[in-house]
Amino acid sequence: MKMFNKVVIIGTGLIGGSLGLALRKQRLAGWVIGLSRHQKNARFAKKIGAIDSIGASLEVVADADLVILATPINTIIDLASRIAKKLKKDCIVIDVGSTKERIVSKLSALIPNFLGCHPLAGSEKKGIANLDGSIFKGSLCIITPTVKTNHHALNKVKLLWKKLGAGVVILSAKKHDFVLALTSHLPHAVAFSLISSIPDQCLGLSSSGLRDTTRISSSDAHLWSEIFLSNRSNLLTALAIFQTKLTILKLALESKNKRQLTKILLLANKKREKLG
Amino acid sequence: MKMFNKVVIIGTGLIGGSLGLALRKQRLAGWVIGLSRHQKNARFAKKIGAIDSIGASLEVVADADLVILATPINTIIDLASRIAKKLKKDCIVIDVGSTKERIVSKLSALIPNFLGCHPLAGSEKKGIANLDGSIFKGSLCIITPTVKTNHHALNKVKLLWKKLGAGVVILSAKKHDFVLALTSHLPHAVAFSLISSIPDQCLGLSSSGLRDTTRISSSDAHLWSEIFLSNRSNLLTALAIFQTKLTILKLALESKNKRQLTKILLLANKKREKLG
Repeated sequence: MKMFNKVVIIGTGLIGGSLGLALRKQRLAGWVIGLSRHQKNARFAKKIGAIDSIGASLEVVADADLVILATPINTIIDLASRIAKKLKKDCIVIDVGSTKERIVSKLSALIPNFLGCHPLAGSEKKGIANLDGSIFKGSLCIITPTVKTNHHALNKVKLLWKKLGAGVVILSAKKHDFVLALTSHLPHAVAFSLISSIPDQCLGLSSSGLRDTTRISSSDAHLWSEIFLSNRSNLLTALAIFQTKLTILKLALESKNKRQLTKILLLANKKREKLG
Repeated sequence: MKMFNKVVIIGTGLIGGSLGLALRKQRLAGWVIGLSRHQKNARFAKKIGAIDSIGASLEVVADADLVILATPINTIIDLASRIAKKLKKDCIVIDVGSTKERIVSKLSALIPNFLGCHPLAGSEKKGIANLDGSIFKGSLCIITPTVKTNHHALNKVKLLWKKLGAGVVILSAKKHDFVLALTSHLPHAVAFSLISSIPDQCLGLSSSGLRDTTRISSSDAHLWSEIFLSNRSNLLTALAIFQTKLTILKLALESKNKRQLTKILLLANKKREKLG
């Protein structure tokens, strides 16, 4: 069943392109138009069937039923102000940015049927070569409505993510940014710092532990410096919590307190078990 | 080709049991005897074919050609002093502990043909249910001889690991402990502290990033508090290096210095790429 007649995806990178593939494969859209700053990416997206056609300019949003903003965070806000006045009255607009408070505050003021979304389905493998319509299956998507959000639009966006195979969680943008600072932005900051700590000449003597722990330090540097800065205050809080935990472990080590050290590691074991 | 007639493995956990499986499968040993503090583990090892028989007491080392000490670090040192006088003159003894300086210093004084070994093939999946004779294939094993090490014994131990599929690296025990503090013990300390920083109610909203970054925080708490303490000074140095890197990232974030922040992340990207 087609949920939307005309869909416009702005930004055909990993998430935008994968959404195109999934929408087309499941016939949820009548026509998918893609736009990208990089013509090469748009052409690739068309070639592999992630979009039906390449949009010539932002004017294509004029008769769209759904617009998906899948660019880096700062571009999302800029794009929204450029397309707001061109949209049909009932057009739904979603973004897929990794932080939500600033985006939701700006975009919900500009676009009546805007909904902030954050599919937890990214990957350190950036770019078009990794487009995959199935990355949303079994993943979670956080939707961040406001008190003013249109219920019909919210229900339609919820249904869209469910049809793509994602579980839907509703959070305020503020809560989203606090939680993600801990569960996503902090692990990235830690992984970037950890790999930076290893001298080149030691890298050859690593086992799978270092490899796994630093996998996400391959994530796009430009994208992540934007994410970090857009959630700066929450991330600084998360870093302070982490530094305290590290100091507690360090103190047990310094004082050769084996009982205390083992207790810290046992509690970590238990918490990790809950993560599954 | 049998390399050893009688092999005794003390400690039939993940590494000891997996070594037994590999030795028997490749017919590198005439007879493999296993001992464990936990009779259940020894019986399981026998049942799955990791050992030919269960040793009744430490007396079984008397006519062994190879003794493998595969227990936690503190027990290795204790065991060595108990078996040293029972061994044949040309019996080779190896351990598989994760830190080497203390073990090598004590054991090379007690046992003429002792060689410290550290196969980088562990796993956070502790215990006998995960025994796997193929875990050494494609892995690295660090051997830590001293100036007094018998060359014949060293060559035989090198050949043993190569036959098990591992690449062999020769390092001094001191260098080993310094390098492993950075490439293994630090990532573990970071992973334990990271998972401890995440409030329970946030765990449900994690993506694969947190999962990978904290995988090794499932590692055995008792084993790892011993490893941390046995390499205390090097690990404290490694933690200090890491804390400095984290502080540099934090300062760029605090001062909203996007250029500096991106530069830090780009350097991390490059270093991670070298890890492969």
